[in-house]
Amino acid sequence: MAVPADFLSWRETMKIKAINPNTTLEMTENIGAVANEYTADDTEVVAVSPDRGPISIESYYDDYLAVPGILDEILKDEDDEFDAFVNSCWGDPGLDACREVTDKPVVGIAEGSMYVANMLGANFSVVTILPRARDFIEEAVRKTGLDGHCASVRCTDLTVVETENTRDAAAKALLEASWEAVEEDDAEVICLGCAGMGGLDEPLEAELPVPVIDSVGAGAVLAESLVQLGKRTSTVRTYKRPESKEIVGYPERYQL
Amino acid sequence: MAVPADFLSWRETMKIKAINPNTTLEMTENIGAVANEYTADDTEVVAVSPDRGPISIESYYDDYLAVPGILDEILKDEDDEFDAFVNSCWGDPGLDACREVTDKPVVGIAEGSMYVANMLGANFSVVTILPRARDFIEEAVRKTGLDGHCASVRCTDLTVVETENTRDAAAKALLEASWEAVEEDDAEVICLGCAGMGGLDEPLEAELPVPVIDSVGAGAVLAESLVQLGKRTSTVRTYKRPESKEIVGYPERYQL
Amino acid sequence: MAVPADFLSWRETMKIKAINPNTTLEMTENIGAVANEYTADDTEVVAVSPDRGPISIESYYDDYLAVPGILDEILKDEDDEFDAFVNSCWGDPGLDACREVTDKPVVGIAEGSMYVANMLGANFSVVTILPRARDFIEEAVRKTGLDGHCASVRCTDLTVVETENTRDAAAKALLEASWEAVEEDDAEVICLGCAGMGGLDEPLEAELPVPVIDSVGAGAVLAESLVQLGKRTSTVRTYKRPESKEIVGYPERYQL
Amino acid sequence: MAVPADFLSWRETMKIKAINPNTTLEMTENIGAVANEYTADDTEVVAVSPDRGPISIESYYDDYLAVPGILDEILKDEDDEFDAFVNSCWGDPGLDACREVTDKPVVGIAEGSMYVANMLGANFSVVTILPRARDFIEEAVRKTGLDGHCASVRCTDLTVVETENTRDAAAKALLEASWEAVEEDDAEVICLGCAGMGGLDEPLEAELPVPVIDSVGAGAVLAESLVQLGKRTSTVRTYKRPESKEIVGYPERYQL
Amino acid sequence: MAVPADFLSWRETMKIKAINPNTTLEMTENIGAVANEYTADDTEVVAVSPDRGPISIESYYDDYLAVPGILDEILKDEDDEFDAFVNSCWGDPGLDACREVTDKPVVGIAEGSMYVANMLGANFSVVTILPRARDFIEEAVRKTGLDGHCASVRCTDLTVVETENTRDAAAKALLEASWEAVEEDDAEVICLGCAGMGGLDEPLEAELPVPVIDSVGAGAVLAESLVQLGKRTSTVRTYKRPESKEIVGYPERYQL
Amino acid sequence: MAVPADFLSWRETMKIKAINPNTTLEMTENIGAVANEYTADDTEVVAVSPDRGPISIESYYDDYLAVPGILDEILKDEDDEFDAFVNSCWGDPGLDACREVTDKPVVGIAEGSMYVANMLGANFSVVTILPRARDFIEEAVRKTGLDGHCASVRCTDLTVVETENTRDAAAKALLEASWEAVEEDDAEVICLGCAGMGGLDEPLEAELPVPVIDSVGAGAVLAESLVQLGKRTSTVRTYKRPESKEIVGYPERYQL
Repeated sequence: MAVPADFLSWRETMKIKAINPNTTLEMTENIGAVANEYTADDTEVVAVSPDRGPISIESYYDDYLAVPGILDEILKDEDDEFDAFVNSCWGDPGLDACREVTDKPVVGIAEGSMYVANMLGANFSVVTILPRARDFIEEAVRKTGLDGHCASVRCTDLTVVETENTRDAAAKALLEASWEAVEEDDAEVICLGCAGMGGLDEPLEAELPVPVIDSVGAGAVLAESLVQLGKRTSTVRTYKRPESKEIVGYPERYQL
Repeated sequence: MAVPADFLSWRETMKIKAINPNTTLEMTENIGAVANEYTADDTEVVAVSPDRGPISIESYYDDYLAVPGILDEILKDEDDEFDAFVNSCWGDPGLDACREVTDKPVVGIAEGSMYVANMLGANFSVVTILPRARDFIEEAVRKTGLDGHCASVRCTDLTVVETENTRDAAAKALLEASWEAVEEDDAEVICLGCAGMGGLDEPLEAELPVPVIDSVGAGAVLAESLVQLGKRTSTVRTYKRPESKEIVGYPERYQL
Repeated sequence: MAVPADFLSWRETMKIKAINPNTTLEMTENIGAVANEYTADDTEVVAVSPDRGPISIESYYDDYLAVPGILDEILKDEDDEFDAFVNSCWGDPGLDACREVTDKPVVGIAEGSMYVANMLGANFSVVTILPRARDFIEEAVRKTGLDGHCASVRCTDLTVVETENTRDAAAKALLEASWEAVEEDDAEVICLGCAGMGGLDEPLEAELPVPVIDSVGAGAVLAESLVQLGKRTSTVRTYKRPESKEIVGYPERYQL
Repeated sequence: MAVPADFLSWRETMKIKAINPNTTLEMTENIGAVANEYTADDTEVVAVSPDRGPISIESYYDDYLAVPGILDEILKDEDDEFDAFVNSCWGDPGLDACREVTDKPVVGIAEGSMYVANMLGANFSVVTILPRARDFIEEAVRKTGLDGHCASVRCTDLTVVETENTRDAAAKALLEASWEAVEEDDAEVICLGCAGMGGLDEPLEAELPVPVIDSVGAGAVLAESLVQLGKRTSTVRTYKRPESKEIVGYPERYQL
Repeated sequence: MAVPADFLSWRETMKIKAINPNTTLEMTENIGAVANEYTADDTEVVAVSPDRGPISIESYYDDYLAVPGILDEILKDEDDEFDAFVNSCWGDPGLDACREVTDKPVVGIAEGSMYVANMLGANFSVVTILPRARDFIEEAVRKTGLDGHCASVRCTDLTVVETENTRDAAAKALLEASWEAVEEDDAEVICLGCAGMGGLDEPLEAELPVPVIDSVGAGAVLAESLVQLGKRTSTVRTYKRPESKEIVGYPERYQL
Repeated sequence: MAVPADFLSWRETMKIKAINPNTTLEMTENIGAVANEYTADDTEVVAVSPDRGPISIESYYDDYLAVPGILDEILKDEDDEFDAFVNSCWGDPGLDACREVTDKPVVGIAEGSMYVANMLGANFSVVTILPRARDFIEEAVRKTGLDGHCASVRCTDLTVVETENTRDAAAKALLEASWEAVEEDDAEVICLGCAGMGGLDEPLEAELPVPVIDSVGAGAVLAESLVQLGKRTSTVRTYKRPESKEIVGYPERYQL
């Protein structure tokens, strides 16, 4: 069935900004590659890093220092270049604030990958980085509401940077954690719980009896879906544009 | 970024079967029209009704009598014509069983519309048909795991058939229920809780301060997303193909 | 204290239909024997199998294909022969729909056995068939509301038919799973999670330090209790008789 | 089907002690009458009041002062006269302790009436005494695990003694609260939340569109059921007999 | 900043009664020592034992027989000597009733230690006495609302009296249970789940990588805090003074 | 009982930093005054505002832009001047991150006031600022774990600055919202859900039948309590000091 041209005017031009919340550029590139791989041919995903913030997010401290930079990447879209945004850290840092400063769809890769996982199995496990991140990851699961479907969060000894730079060792550690999730926790789907793991889903899936979800990919295709549906974030209450007020000590752009 | 042709071989041919679980053909047509409207140009959605089942689903009784027909529509796909299925009744009847008889993605419109809603607002309400369906609807919400984000289920006096046949009256009743959800229950997004309401999202959204989700549209674009991701349902345990066994009194095709 | 004759007119004639949702007659016989053993002398339990459906219920697919036959067994009661019905599969398939088509009490053996267990210990475990049934079983627990009291669901390698036909092997596997529940999960009561396990409660209890609940027995005595109380299912909303409508492709009796 | 005589040796002699936890004898008599009405002809229910305790239970204070007397009524059963006990206050005071001092079944009327209600409707409301009891009642609901099925707790201005002594006024207040539960909270079944309301279920049910559960009746028939099943309370851990130790300032009988 | 003398008139005279709910005087002394150690110099904690009750609380039976004595210790405060009360058994026996008979702050050591733990780590475990107490302890956790933050309850083979009398063996068993909590359950804080363990927090903390909370200390300082805030228990509904009524078989003082 | 001088060396010098997360100095002063009023004579509370951040926190955006400044106020404590910190915004912004950068106790006023409320009534309501903050407030409640005890969150039309600057109007709006909470939601305690409301607890309490909690006061006395107990934040996992790494675009002090 033909789609009326004016209804889906985005179709010529869909452009999504994938924000890598940390300042490690190799990871940003990887995020862009993965997101473009999974989205449609005529969708362009532009991956960016904020000007400021930690080089990786492994603690609540890192998380909170990253958020102003993430917000800035949305505030920069003054010419309405983008149709949607993907918050590309498993933990969806500052996602609520992102939704306040734009009414274009903003998808977090944690929520996105969990929704996808929840449609593919009766439950899922998240395999992720250092043990200290467990609470951070579990909060993301709970905030999305899918804690009842989460079989486990399995941590490894990997730092974020290692997931990106030592691919073989990372794949090995993740494979081991995934097997534990499948065998001990009865997991039916694996979510890769870090944006640095982009591209590892297929090699892991080849060695596991369960689907493995690339979280950046999942977030990107769901952002595409929201644009296709033509929907915008609700501005009736929680995600209403913040009241204009003085913001001390931040660059001009933060002044709404 | 270019997508390697062999990776996304579906792109030439993506074909989704949207199953209207009841046997009212006008509704089937509407489902097809809406699903095709929201999915990509090069995606073809074929809407079907089962050979058997009630003309509408308004009770658990209707729901259970519809499921064998839904399953049959998946079992019919012997030549692998389709890439994914959409279970098009808000209540996702028999969704678990659907996932057992195929490993192609199967998306329910209840779950699909709730995921979409959950990315657009801090909570959502479902506006739907007769009061007797409340428990049925709430079970679907709870099964998906999003009960903590559901502000309310608001029933009307509409039957399923009326949602389809008396569009103006239906729109009026849904508008009223939606306003109650927004004002009394603090809802930030409205899910239209019946496949017969397809196409009413835009007129309703024009009169409400919140996004209104067409559930068939949401289910269809999420099915597209799962195909894009190249993922299949987990067959490791819950959704493993059912053990072959004698099925008494059902047509040949049900014999796995 | 004497009970006024007219109040409890059922007492002369209490007759309960125990519906084995599958079509394996040996299991039907066993269900009848167990139910009659536990109910009062002047209660007659008639065990039946539907005309159609799978020979055992081990998957959601089986479950859904069994429900129309279960409903038929209730619809057949046109002369008001029975006082109550027992849905005799641990999973309580289609229980909500059963309650719509009659206002006589309908008790599921899953809910019945859990209520009994919950009155005998601080928690309970369910020992049951194949691992694939875990999700199915957990849904039944959750639907009843007793997930907070369920210490664990312990699956075995038993098929339904094996629970019936290879009693010694079944008893051995269940004993092992029960010990694991008691020792590792701190279970205080065991529910036998399949109607095919009828009659195994006493031999198992003889070897375990905890009560073991025969689920069919529990369901049958609770059905008796509801009849004694003279109560009928609420028809005010959820379990109101379904709206009369065309049901395509089903035998005449399904047309309400 | 005939039941082997030795299996159900209780049948000649089933004798249940219904303990009214307060010291108001009119209420004790009413409890006995109701319990005998609903249980089988050959079951004898003996209703008793403890030697000590408040004349009614309306606060946590009353509740805790009543428990030693309740326990005493179980400890008194030194000649094994009874087959089961019914704790007849909606709130099930000291129920866990009761289960420690005997392994014969002990049923609370709160839990019993909720199980019955949960088999008759998709949810239930409790209509009860003074507003101060709401927390007490809600704790009983939550402890049983059925809070997810409880539509509401509706308090009245009735004291316990008034439910017993001013029957017409009590019936009127309960009718009003019940209608509010049905219309505003969508309740499908009403539990009468006080043992003093025994006998009001039928007049109320005559004026309401939903079943009304007499909680004493429900508790008594469930106690009967547990005896029929031949089950005893689990003594493996939580309900093991308390360690023998010095109990200062209590009568001899409390010394285990 | 100076505090106006009249505002904090309690400061000259703050006096807290710590009620050891059992009748073992060595434990009472220990409770007093610990509570005085942690509270301010000018706060006096008086530790008492009731006249009646079990010598230790290890079962629900013990718990319920202890409560009348606890209440008596509050009722005895006729001359308004005390500013607050500490209910010093991990399980907070009869805490709701205590709050009904006085509007001065009453703090339970279970709730107090959990609040403290929840401010020091992302979760906590409770290490405690005999396995039979697990349900009792878990109820206290759940009643306070912090079950979502409780990593585990780890029982030992210690009786209450042993925690007091065989300090070395008790410390050893608790250390082992604590290590299991830290390593297997990912606990970040340990609550010592029995008043008899007072004084063991520091030696245990010296050997563990996590904070160890002395529950009596935590309860006492929180009682102090409530007095400092000048707040009294809410008497609007649940904790309103119980209706005056005849209390049969209890000493005069219980008659409100 | 005398407290050994070396054990409580803090007593001479207890010094608490109360961080007002916004940059409105009048509010900082008020926070200091209230905190000093409720804490002990020999405790000094120093109230500060960060160098950067919004002038009030009313949205997630404000919240996230405030956190780096809050963290800075803790990082500034290089000479170990303070014994504890109070995060003085109802919403506890960045509390987890605060606990990572110091192991001295950090108390949030949301959690602190809820713990206090939970010891004074069977439930509590939060009365607070603009409707858009509801989700923010509910998240704080849920994160603490006390959602089961929260009767309601009642929003007003007050901005944060208005709570501070237009005291009479603020008191009036809060009184009205509190009455609604008490009468419609059965609230037994009121938490004032904004640091700007400091000092309004007593006038409000004078007109209401329930205790009213000043959240800053509650947070400050609980911080004092944790210091008295001599406890430090657990550094075993979640609140371990963040890994040292490059932090781009932040002042030197943020580099751990």
